[in-house]
Amino acid sequence: MVQQCSAVIIGVGPEQGLGATLATFFSGKGLHVFVAGRSEDKLHKIAEKIRQKGGAATSVVADATIELEVARLFNKVRLDGYYIDIAAYNVDSNIPSPLLETNTETFITLWQQNCLGAFLFGKEAINAMNERQQGTLFFTGATASLRAKPPFTAFAAAKAGLRALAQGMAREFSPQGIHVVHTIIDGVIDGERARNQFPDYVRAKGKDGLLQLEAIAETYWAIHKQRPSAWTHELDLRPFKEPF
Amino acid sequence: MVQQCSAVIIGVGPEQGLGATLATFFSGKGLHVFVAGRSEDKLHKIAEKIRQKGGAATSVVADATIELEVARLFNKVRLDGYYIDIAAYNVDSNIPSPLLETNTETFITLWQQNCLGAFLFGKEAINAMNERQQGTLFFTGATASLRAKPPFTAFAAAKAGLRALAQGMAREFSPQGIHVVHTIIDGVIDGERARNQFPDYVRAKGKDGLLQLEAIAETYWAIHKQRPSAWTHELDLRPFKEPF
Amino acid sequence: MVQQCSAVIIGVGPEQGLGATLATFFSGKGLHVFVAGRSEDKLHKIAEKIRQKGGAATSVVADATIELEVARLFNKVRLDGYYIDIAAYNVDSNIPSPLLETNTETFITLWQQNCLGAFLFGKEAINAMNERQQGTLFFTGATASLRAKPPFTAFAAAKAGLRALAQGMAREFSPQGIHVVHTIIDGVIDGERARNQFPDYVRAKGKDGLLQLEAIAETYWAIHKQRPSAWTHELDLRPFKEPF
Amino acid sequence: MVQQCSAVIIGVGPEQGLGATLATFFSGKGLHVFVAGRSEDKLHKIAEKIRQKGGAATSVVADATIELEVARLFNKVRLDGYYIDIAAYNVDSNIPSPLLETNTETFITLWQQNCLGAFLFGKEAINAMNERQQGTLFFTGATASLRAKPPFTAFAAAKAGLRALAQGMAREFSPQGIHVVHTIIDGVIDGERARNQFPDYVRAKGKDGLLQLEAIAETYWAIHKQRPSAWTHELDLRPFKEPF
Repeated sequence: MVQQCSAVIIGVGPEQGLGATLATFFSGKGLHVFVAGRSEDKLHKIAEKIRQKGGAATSVVADATIELEVARLFNKVRLDGYYIDIAAYNVDSNIPSPLLETNTETFITLWQQNCLGAFLFGKEAINAMNERQQGTLFFTGATASLRAKPPFTAFAAAKAGLRALAQGMAREFSPQGIHVVHTIIDGVIDGERARNQFPDYVRAKGKDGLLQLEAIAETYWAIHKQRPSAWTHELDLRPFKEPF
Repeated sequence: MVQQCSAVIIGVGPEQGLGATLATFFSGKGLHVFVAGRSEDKLHKIAEKIRQKGGAATSVVADATIELEVARLFNKVRLDGYYIDIAAYNVDSNIPSPLLETNTETFITLWQQNCLGAFLFGKEAINAMNERQQGTLFFTGATASLRAKPPFTAFAAAKAGLRALAQGMAREFSPQGIHVVHTIIDGVIDGERARNQFPDYVRAKGKDGLLQLEAIAETYWAIHKQRPSAWTHELDLRPFKEPF
Repeated sequence: MVQQCSAVIIGVGPEQGLGATLATFFSGKGLHVFVAGRSEDKLHKIAEKIRQKGGAATSVVADATIELEVARLFNKVRLDGYYIDIAAYNVDSNIPSPLLETNTETFITLWQQNCLGAFLFGKEAINAMNERQQGTLFFTGATASLRAKPPFTAFAAAKAGLRALAQGMAREFSPQGIHVVHTIIDGVIDGERARNQFPDYVRAKGKDGLLQLEAIAETYWAIHKQRPSAWTHELDLRPFKEPF
Repeated sequence: MVQQCSAVIIGVGPEQGLGATLATFFSGKGLHVFVAGRSEDKLHKIAEKIRQKGGAATSVVADATIELEVARLFNKVRLDGYYIDIAAYNVDSNIPSPLLETNTETFITLWQQNCLGAFLFGKEAINAMNERQQGTLFFTGATASLRAKPPFTAFAAAKAGLRALAQGMAREFSPQGIHVVHTIIDGVIDGERARNQFPDYVRAKGKDGLLQLEAIAETYWAIHKQRPSAWTHELDLRPFKEPF
């Protein structure tokens, strides 16, 4: 069986979301994409859309925070005969909350989704990439990983954990040929989530005041294409107007 | 009922450990100390020793990672009629492990002990301190919070979360009079743990090459005594010989 | 007069150096390149080589640390009828020295070349770019900007200044459409300087163990092509084998 | 000749300033203080005041940015028969200025005062302390060393340089027994400068909303008294109300 290139993306939800955009973009570059997430419906829609554009996509329902489901996802990739060029952990979960109103469940959930899932996903991805000593592993992070501000303390604690995880993985596996990347998304992504949750903000910022999905995907691709002699481990992505 | 000053320290274990040393030190400064941890035996021994020196101590068995037990600890303090001058989260749990050999349970446990427990403890402490708008809340952190190096990636992810948590708490509660402090312990503490686990290293470093317990306690006290007009939120503590 | 696109690069020296490579690369993308540096000979050689490949290049002798010479460089660009798409500050000067052996002249020189020159160059570049509210301004930085280690303390102090300068410029001018980028070069560049100064190290590291010049240039170009809705201000570049 | 303990403080200006306060405080602890700065008048006034309180003080006119004057200061200390327990670089010079309005002279001056002077002073202090392998060397820094925000870009570039310098010195000389400390002053010091320059701000903040001089001095002293087994290299100091 001839193995083929693929990209595995978890945290794929709405059509106008970063997960779906990365999948569509990588598909356009010739990779078979595995789109994973919790909503079968959304995954099907995106896989279908990719196929309509002439791409190849497989949808796999998987909760990033559940070890067995993450393992199942990567088994599927293996059994289908694909090696992994790109793996992207794109789960992003944020619940603003003053600390005294943050209940334990919220604190745990944010960590599971932003950090634990990244550990489970990253470990499987590295295991898969290790054979060929090749592949790019992306973790979509946030500015909160660098600076904890209320009411985002729980979110920041989770994202700081994610950043450390990605850094440790980079130190351990870069020398083995696996490119581990942590992106610091600084600002609001112009996607379905933002448009539903704070439409006024979206309007006020204007198009380039928000992170455009396709623009993010372009940079992910450029980083993936870097040659091993000059790899980037961490970079920020921010609308030009965004104060920081 | 006249309320009295107290210090609440969780993560109290061996007699030659930081938790026990902080308790003894704070007791020497006139505070009633509540020593909490998982081992009833060890707590009793330390409380007894403090009493023999003329101090006042109460031991409370509590697992820092279990919400109810942390709540019970703070209830006890309240019911006994004490307000809290100092609360110190001193749980420190480290298991070196290459990433691919780190199982999920280890990853979760390290986080629960280094970060989740700090959330539970910190929240209760802040709730207690909020009435008087006064008190110092310490989180004992580590250099790994700043830099993730294998085989300490899981530990680093947990400590980075702790650091962010402490920072978010400081931003939210300093203006209300609660002094939140994150210490970056850089190096090995000269305590029972190190002496048992790597006696050769301890010998090689010599006395001042390891962090002396009492020396750490002195700085905690100095930081506690800072006036609100010049508070330190974060500081490192490192043996003078320690490369960094 | 129809204005044309250009790239202005200062710190252009040896043919196998980053300045020359950036110039050649940008020329290959259709930009007229202005190559600036202190050695007329070297500049001529590079400009000539670019022309032989069908590109367009102008060499301007300029010491980056001398205000008038930097001004003259940018006047030349203006008078020749070019606007500036890319300006790259690529002066990099390092002299390892234990602190007590570092004389004042060395300390000042390192700062002038790594930081003061960047201020002079950046200010002129921003003035030129401001009219069109467009352009990318690169500062080639180093890991030392994040961590000062002897015997590189003087170098680190200069590079830390450069990093702060770039960050302040980004905050001030990004909202006006000028993309300010600070790159953190971590490792040794495989160029003439390294090959002359430590040939054994170069051999030991192997090709991908050193930063390849062309690989760096590719990333500079990718960052330049980012759309304003997702700009990167800072990124590291490191050979995959490089410990960090 | 029996040698005696001293503290050497440079950047001593107004009576209600940090330099003068440190000098007075250290004198109160029994150290002979050498107060240095550019204004003979101010130095005399402070030295006189210290003597009236029963302390011992010597004033030395010295511009921290001029190598010979710094050398002269330390020669004076040596010739007078003092070794140095504490040396504090307390020069702080800030000129807010949008980047395009920042002239070269300002950029250079800020660097000379905040960074070059620290190099000159630090080197002399280390040379003096090296004999006894003992002493504490303070550098008064600022938040700008961590984050460059307009209109403070030039200031930030200088303070970032200072921070790197202090860090490199700590790495090089801590193992030799010299305690190098970088303080991050975050907020406005309640001194003569602030009271003259922005009286309304001072009033609005209230007493504890500004850094109280004596409170800073107390922490400097506590850090100086740390035992070598647990030294702090860097710490922030911030009024409890200060947003950060």
